[in-house]
This record gives sequence, structure tokens and C-alpha cells, in this order.
Amino acid sequence: MAMTGVLRPGHACIRVLDMKEATHFYGEVLGLIETGRDSFGRVYYRAWDEIEHNSIILREADSAGMDFMGFKVDSEASLDRLEADVRAYGIPTERIPAGDLLQTGERVRFQIPSGHQIELYAEKARLSTPQSGNNPPPWNPEAERGIAPIRFDHALLYGPDIEKVQDLFVNVLGFHTSEQIMLEDGKTQLAIFMACSSKAHDIAFVRHEEPAKLHHVSFYMESWEKVLRAADLMSMHKISIDMGPTRHGVTRGTTIYAFDPSGNRFETFAGVQSSYPDHETLTWTWDEVGTAVYYHDRQLNPAFLGVVT
Amino acid sequence: MAMTGVLRPGHACIRVLDMKEATHFYGEVLGLIETGRDSFGRVYYRAWDEIEHNSIILREADSAGMDFMGFKVDSEASLDRLEADVRAYGIPTERIPAGDLLQTGERVRFQIPSGHQIELYAEKARLSTPQSGNNPPPWNPEAERGIAPIRFDHALLYGPDIEKVQDLFVNVLGFHTSEQIMLEDGKTQLAIFMACSSKAHDIAFVRHEEPAKLHHVSFYMESWEKVLRAADLMSMHKISIDMGPTRHGVTRGTTIYAFDPSGNRFETFAGVQSSYPDHETLTWTWDEVGTAVYYHDRQLNPAFLGVVT
Amino acid sequence: MAMTGVLRPGHACIRVLDMKEATHFYGEVLGLIETGRDSFGRVYYRAWDEIEHNSIILREADSAGMDFMGFKVDSEASLDRLEADVRAYGIPTERIPAGDLLQTGERVRFQIPSGHQIELYAEKARLSTPQSGNNPPPWNPEAERGIAPIRFDHALLYGPDIEKVQDLFVNVLGFHTSEQIMLEDGKTQLAIFMACSSKAHDIAFVRHEEPAKLHHVSFYMESWEKVLRAADLMSMHKISIDMGPTRHGVTRGTTIYAFDPSGNRFETFAGVQSSYPDHETLTWTWDEVGTAVYYHDRQLNPAFLGVVT
Amino acid sequence: MAMTGVLRPGHACIRVLDMKEATHFYGEVLGLIETGRDSFGRVYYRAWDEIEHNSIILREADSAGMDFMGFKVDSEASLDRLEADVRAYGIPTERIPAGDLLQTGERVRFQIPSGHQIELYAEKARLSTPQSGNNPPPWNPEAERGIAPIRFDHALLYGPDIEKVQDLFVNVLGFHTSEQIMLEDGKTQLAIFMACSSKAHDIAFVRHEEPAKLHHVSFYMESWEKVLRAADLMSMHKISIDMGPTRHGVTRGTTIYAFDPSGNRFETFAGVQSSYPDHETLTWTWDEVGTAVYYHDRQLNPAFLGVVT
Repeated sequence: MAMTGVLRPGHACIRVLDMKEATHFYGEVLGLIETGRDSFGRVYYRAWDEIEHNSIILREADSAGMDFMGFKVDSEASLDRLEADVRAYGIPTERIPAGDLLQTGERVRFQIPSGHQIELYAEKARLSTPQSGNNPPPWNPEAERGIAPIRFDHALLYGPDIEKVQDLFVNVLGFHTSEQIMLEDGKTQLAIFMACSSKAHDIAFVRHEEPAKLHHVSFYMESWEKVLRAADLMSMHKISIDMGPTRHGVTRGTTIYAFDPSGNRFETFAGVQSSYPDHETLTWTWDEVGTAVYYHDRQLNPAFLGVVT
Repeated sequence: MAMTGVLRPGHACIRVLDMKEATHFYGEVLGLIETGRDSFGRVYYRAWDEIEHNSIILREADSAGMDFMGFKVDSEASLDRLEADVRAYGIPTERIPAGDLLQTGERVRFQIPSGHQIELYAEKARLSTPQSGNNPPPWNPEAERGIAPIRFDHALLYGPDIEKVQDLFVNVLGFHTSEQIMLEDGKTQLAIFMACSSKAHDIAFVRHEEPAKLHHVSFYMESWEKVLRAADLMSMHKISIDMGPTRHGVTRGTTIYAFDPSGNRFETFAGVQSSYPDHETLTWTWDEVGTAVYYHDRQLNPAFLGVVT
Repeated sequence: MAMTGVLRPGHACIRVLDMKEATHFYGEVLGLIETGRDSFGRVYYRAWDEIEHNSIILREADSAGMDFMGFKVDSEASLDRLEADVRAYGIPTERIPAGDLLQTGERVRFQIPSGHQIELYAEKARLSTPQSGNNPPPWNPEAERGIAPIRFDHALLYGPDIEKVQDLFVNVLGFHTSEQIMLEDGKTQLAIFMACSSKAHDIAFVRHEEPAKLHHVSFYMESWEKVLRAADLMSMHKISIDMGPTRHGVTRGTTIYAFDPSGNRFETFAGVQSSYPDHETLTWTWDEVGTAVYYHDRQLNPAFLGVVT
Repeated sequence: MAMTGVLRPGHACIRVLDMKEATHFYGEVLGLIETGRDSFGRVYYRAWDEIEHNSIILREADSAGMDFMGFKVDSEASLDRLEADVRAYGIPTERIPAGDLLQTGERVRFQIPSGHQIELYAEKARLSTPQSGNNPPPWNPEAERGIAPIRFDHALLYGPDIEKVQDLFVNVLGFHTSEQIMLEDGKTQLAIFMACSSKAHDIAFVRHEEPAKLHHVSFYMESWEKVLRAADLMSMHKISIDMGPTRHGVTRGTTIYAFDPSGNRFETFAGVQSSYPDHETLTWTWDEVGTAVYYHDRQLNPAFLGVVT
């Protein structure tokens, strides 16, 4: 009823090539708050307006990319039920014990048709922060340390069989498809944007031959002026900007795409468009694929389709 | 799963004292788009970014206020089930036939403990608009005709027994309580803010002796700069401003309260705070009730508690 | 030719009742940068985007208010000529030796008909700051320490004989009158706004019986969103807000009026309107005096006319 | 004294290849207000916040570019004196009779070392507009018709001998050099930015072999959010965007470069940086030439140096 089951993107584990460079970037430039390190050497972060222990986890590895992305569900009962539903759908699942991720309960993990590892979990420790206590202020000093997004918002993933991914997310996990971009034939989807909330999207996929690829993780900014500030800070820190500041046609959001020191693309994103399951999917046609992605340039840059980790 | 059942505020029927004055205000100053008039003389509006036939309905009457507020549910099955649940909870319901409101299906109506008439419905006609078609632009000329909010966002209602209202909305209709303001005793709620989505709130109640009162209907603006533009237009049209531009502590939103020509308060509101059912309710204590409502003035103005319709 | 003679407001010396409270406010809350203290116990500040040694000087005293306000002129030759012109106009002047204000050259001081002490000076030391060096960035950390205005912008002073003040500023000092507010008779000025630059104003006067009074010193903010941030910080620091965030009719600027701990009003102001000497003075009539000052409320608050230091 | 002599950029005459396309662009897309057509077929425009008869004049021709740019001076006496000064400097001048440009007085025209035709004039008719009358509102409907800049702000011109141009503008016309970009040798200027007001610049030059070239005319927008709106409208009208939305290092302004249908580059620009004649020129070094122009991309695009009209 109303919001149940899968609630939101909760965490993503990002592979970085050099942890020292990475923690400088995620902690000082992006301005996330480090909340812990585990015995595997993973480093945990939350955004200043997030009230749970972690949303971004970094793991040092030989190749960049995303290990897994986890969605928060509303209860252990939902976790059990969704696990059963995914299995019944024909996808094997595994249980990862509580505590494998710091301050996080048991996770149900499974591989989706695009090759990505997706997780569900019901528990992550709530922290005591200025924003989670009584009388929360609109601002706290962490809100201006670095780029300082307010939350991990969504991810855009690249891989094959995205219509199968859509079927799973919509018919098993309860998402709705808010927007889609079509290929020349008008029937095949180039991209799908899906939400488990009234947000414009919570996860998106682009059709791509190679499985399990990351296009970007996205961080939510409060305004177009904060997007400008993010661009200024990226420049002062010599961060490589892929595109932006600009607007997406899809979601009507304003955006910058840029790269972390390992080459993982990230987004600083603002926008207020909402989506609902009873609304028809907004469709972008092939002749407008440029405006769908980059509303002002009206054409894809080569990196958009090709550069993933 | 994810978003089901009650989805969002869908319509509110506002009583106005003089329809000619009212249509000038709602159509030209506020800038809603008139979509129809019915045989009862009611006038129907939608906001430029709304894709269904109507969200605000005006009825001429001898006293200002709100006749009823309706919530969109995801399906006829949900409508039937929720009707049964409300009845099982002990609240009588009535079915209002499809077509009583233009382009709107059958509605289930019931009176909540605060005295307000609340409705659920599963069908309202989707219009063909620039924003609902393929390749929707970020802007269209209607986006700048008058104050031009993007949607009817929520209402704040005044009445008694708000803890009973909360129980109904949370335990029967599936809402979660995002924020609350407490009275001196630290136990009794002065105000409750509830959502059926990941928005900061979809409906709110303030404890008040007299039942069935309207504090305000709220319209969503895209940015703080649009809130400024709204204030400028209100001034140019000699609209009576109650408070603002300012910020609310609750929801962290920016806001103006003002009055329509009949004395109904409305709000032009911007903000990006979200809420989730697994988050603890944010609590504002009595000593901070001023900042909870008007973050900059840090005190209630007398009208906040007293002037309702 | 082009810009010569009097260039801009350069410094204001503000009387505060308690220096410890005052330095907390000006240094930490308003976020000015302390640049020195002199043997008289005066404390010196500049804003982060100002490149000269000081703009605001605090002096502890038994009563709040403004000791004097100084304007930067372009050269010693202009200083000598303007001194002679002021004397020829019939107003005595005095020379205050270089170094009386830290890092500031000789000043020519005189009392204007409204009772205020006005100064001209040609020299103030240029500091080496991020904004004054090669390749200045759009932002530096001081730009977000406290409210962080970019400059001391202007002052609004209260006193008698403002038409005489206008004659002196326009015909001797070379200012132009950008805007004025008229009293009921349509002939007498309630307020005059004058500029020595293409800014909307550099100094303003309101007719008032008591001489030598300060209404406010104004600090320039980069945007309406920065004005909101200023209001948030004022609230978090329990600063007393007189009015705002709102818009002025005069200058079309957005604004907050608030009080320092000694009761001196200050303004955080944003706006892009310009003025030129060949433009007719924009005139606000008595029936619109409310909108001239507070564009949204459309009426003066009692404090506007009465509370000065 | 204060502001005298040359006051501001007053008009620019732009050559367009097809007047019908051009008037659609300047009148409907850019949203300037047509104020007249003359017997030569030239079409005159002003921006909504400008109070004089014209600022942009279009002339149909076989090649795009700029015929001339005119600066408003404060009086006929200044016009005579400046004419004499320019001649004394060794540059011939010609008088163009009043009325040659609609509603504009006699103009003094001369060719500067970069090959451009520059004019001075003392008279242009003031119109009766919402913004020029008593009690001017912050907004009027023209403020949202098309891109709707508030004024013609400056031009960037390309040609040889820019140090000679600088000498003329500074030492004869009274401008000051607010910023400069240096070539590799650290001594030769690639670009100079000069102001006759407290604006960041009123005219700029880039060193270029071919004389008399136009890089862009610039239109001033009120905010970064208005720059975004400009970009959205450009996209909806299929205007070719060269770069942006982004920020300039020089002037710290936010910007879009785009092309009119004839290939003339124009800019929609926002920013609040000021300049003064007593401030040292801000210098951008060759290693930071990228950030000087495009602060976020940190490199010049090929069009910046090569594409001019």
C-alpha cells in the first residue's frame, strides 16, 4: 500500500584503482562523509543529508566499475517475499550475511539479465546526524564541504537484454517504467528508466553488448545553482568533465557527467520531475535521441555510448 | 509493491464566493489551465505539467473552504479493497458515480475524524499535452502564464482528532508520517505531515477545534527563483500575501502563503526533500514550533493558527 | 572620463556595544575576514571578494550607529580637487592623516547636511588574495564561511535636509540620482538613491528629523539563492531579521534586513539593476511607497521608518 | 566626475543574410522588441529593460558581421570633446547626421586599429515603457517573451593591433582594462577586456590577423537560471549552440555562446562581477587560457579562436 517493498537505491559498491586517490576524491572533492572502513579495506561513505550508515562503498581493484548495487526494502518480510519471487521468476539468489557490509543487515543478491549484481536488504543502521534529529536545520557545515550532494540518487547501467531487466524490475520488484528511449525501429528500447518511488527514476539501463557495465552513479543536488557550484569545484580540482552543466531531456533534470580518478563516471544531478506507476511511460524517439540525453547540444557525444567501466 | 494503492493527491474542490473573480485568479493569476465546466457550474483546472484532466475544481458557494479532496489510486481493484478496508475500520463510505466530476471515474468518499471529506478514485482521463506526448520539452508557453505551478501538491487541513486521522491514513491507507510538530507536553501532536509517495508530504493536518477546515492547498514550483517570481506576480495582481517568500523548517521547502479572492489560503511551494516509510518521523519540538513553520522569522504569525476557511 | 573622481563606497566605521559579540557576528556569522586591529581597539574587515585591506571597521562605543563612511577616489589629484570643491561649496573639511585607518591613506572628512560624516580617500592597500592574483577562481573557501557577501555595497542613512545632501552629492561629488520616493505632496522626497557608478545605487538617504542616523549598511550577495542561504544562517544563529527575504521595488533587488548584536541594521542584498547619469531618475509615488520598499508586502513595516541607530 | 564621457555600449548594427529569418530570430526567439524600420530596410530592436529606442539594428547584407558599434556619451559637450581628442590622437572621424539611425542624434564615427567602426553619440530617444515610468515593476510580460535578455551588454571583437586599441580606449576614451589574457610569452595580450563603467566589461578584443571581425554581441540575463531557460529555448528553436551553459573564468560570468541564423555568434550572459579603474587588471596566463574562457572545460574549443563574422 502506497510505498512498500523496494523503497530506494541504498548502496553501490564502486571499484577504484587507487584507494588513496579515491578517498581524496570521494571524501574531499565530492564531499561525502566517511563512515567506516572494513576488514576487506573497503571504505564507506554517506551524503550529508542521508541518515543511514552508508550509500557509497569503495573497493580497490584492478579494474574500475561497480561490484553491486543494493536496494532498501521496507521489512524483513518483504525481503523474504521478494527473494522467493525472484527465485520463482527463475533467477537464483544468494544470501550474504549481515555485517558483511558495515552496519547493514542480510542481503539477497542476484544477477540480472544485463549481468549486474543487484541486492535487496531490509536493515541499515540509522545514524544520529543533524538531519536525523529533532528540529533538523536546512543546512549544516557538511552541506558545503566539497560538491556535497544530498544523496546517492540512482545509477545508469549498461548491458544486454534490457527488456528482460525491465520485466524483472517491473513485474517482480514492483518498479514502473517512467521513460524510455527508442531505437530507429521504434520498437526496440535503447534505454529504460525505472522508479520504485515517485522520483523521476531510481535506476536506468542502456542496451549494450558487454554485460555488467557502469555508465554512472548519480548524486542529487538541490538546485541548478548547486550544479554550477559542482562544476566550479570540479574545475578547481581538475576533475575530468564529460558533459555539462546541461539539461537532460529525459527527466528534465540538470546535470554534469564527470569521471572519478579511476575513470568511473558520476553525475551531479538536480531536478524535480516525478513519476507514477499509473502514468504512461514517456517515450523519446530515435530522431530526438540527442535531445533525450543532452537537451541543449541535441546530439550524443561519442563518450555517452562508448565509455563505461 | 514499490508504489501501489494510494498514489497521490489528485483533486481538490474549493469553494469560492464569486466565480468570476475566482476564475480570473485561478486561470489568469495562478495560471492554471481551464479544462472544463460542468452542469453544476463547477470550473475545472489542471497545472501545465499535470497530464490528467483536472486537479483543482471550483464551486461557487456562500462560504469559502474545501468541499473534498481526492486521492488517485492505482487500480479499480485497489479502490475496491481500500473501500472495504475503510468500512472495516468503521468509517462509512459512499460511491459517487463516474462522471459526477468531469472525466473522472467512480469515487469512494468518506468523512475522516477531522471532519473532512476524503475521496479515492482510480480513473481520470489523461490529456494529450506537450508534457504527456513523445519527446516532452522542459518548458512550454503555459509554464510561464501566470504563477504557473507545475502541480497541485498537497493540502494542509485543520480539524480535531488528528491522531485518529493519522491512524486511518497510516494503517488503512498506507501513508507514512514524515514529520510532526509537538505541543508543549511533548506528547500531543500539533501537526502531522504524511506521504503516500517519496515526496516530503502529500497531506498534512493541524489540530484545531473546529472540524473540516482548510488551511491551504499547495502548488509546487520548480525552484526558489520561481517562488520569487510568484511573489512578484502576486504583488502586481494585489494578491494578499500571508507570509513569504520564506522557508519552512518542516520539509525544508521554500514557500509563500497567500489568499485567493475568497479568502482561501494557497501556497506556492518549492523543495526537494524526500520521505520514506522506513525513516523515523522527523520531530519538531514546541520550543522550535516557530522555526518549524517559518524558518526565518522563528515565530508563528497569528494568522497561521487562526485564519482558516 | 568614463569613471573618474569618486569611485565607490570604500569603508564604513560602525559603532558596536560589545566588541566580542560584534567580532563573533561580523567575523563568524556574516563571514567577513578580519584584516587587522588598531591601537584604538578598532577591528578591520574585508569581504572575500574585496581586494583592499578593509571595508568595515568596528569601534566599541556606548551607542550603536555609524561614525563615518568613506568613498574611494581615483587619485590624489582628485582628492585635492574634490576637497577644494567641497570647501568652495561652503562645507568645511578636515584632513585625517594617513595611517589613522590601517593601510589607508589621508582622508578628507566633512559633515553633510544630514549630519553624517563622509570621507574621501585615494589610497588603501591592495591585498594579495585568491581573487586579486592571476587566474582568479570563481570561488574560494572564504566564499562560504558564514553569510559571505562579496562586498560592502552601500549604506542607507537617515537625516534632515536630504535635498541639500542630494545637491552636494550630485553637483559637487558627481553622483547621479538613480531613484527617489516622493511624499504625499508629490514634490518632497522621502528618499533618494544615488550612484557614482553604474550600480543601482552607492548611497541612499531617507528624510528624518534626527540627524546622522544609520538605517543600514548593505552587503552584496551573488544571487537570490545566496540570499536564502543568508536567511537560513541568520536563523541558525538567532539573528534578528527585520524583513525578508523579499524584493525591493526600488532597484528591483532582493534583500533581507536584519540586526547585528548592537542593533545596527544590515542588509544582504542581490540584484543586477544598473543606473546611468543620463537616465531620468526613477520615481516612486507616495501611493506606492509600500511596494517601493517591500515589493511583496506592499506596505512599510513600522520599523522601516522608526528604527535607526 | 564619477561617471562622465563615455557611458555604455548603446547600439550595434549587425549584418544578417536574410532579414526574414533574422527578424524571426531576434524578435521571437531572442525576444527583443522591434521599435522601428528605416528607409534603408534596417530593423531596430531594444531589450525589455532598456529604455532607449534601440540597441540592436539589423541590416541585410551579403556577409554576416558587425557594421559598427556605438557608445552613448553623457552630453553633446562630451561628444565634441571626445571627437577632438580622437582626432588629436591621429584618428580621423566623421559626423553622421542625426536621424540616420532612427531616434538617434548625430554620431561621431572612426575606425579603430583593429579595423572596427566605432561610434559615439549623445542622444537617443527615451521611450515610455513599463520600466521607465513611475513605480517600475520588477517584471513585465516582455520579460518572458523569448529569451528576453535585459540589455545589450557588450561585444567581443577580433582584429589586429589590440594594444593600439587598448591605448585608444584607455587613454582617449577613458576606459579601464579590467582583465586580460596573455599569450605564451607572458607579455603579449591575447585578449583585453575594458569597461567605461563599474561593469566587468563593456567591450573586449581578441588578437586576430583579419581586421574588423565580430566574435559575439552579448546580451545580459538576470541569473544562472535565466541562462538555463535561454539554453532550453535555443534548443526548442534549433538554435546552434557553440558552448554552454558554462562559466567564463574571465568576469566569472555564466554564459552560452550560440549563433544567429546568419552565423553571427551571440552570448547570453549573467554575472555580477564589477570592475574599477583603480583596480589592477586581472591577468590570465597562457597555461590557464582554457579556464579563462571556459572555466569548466578548461580548454578552448576550436571555434572560439576561428569562427568569427
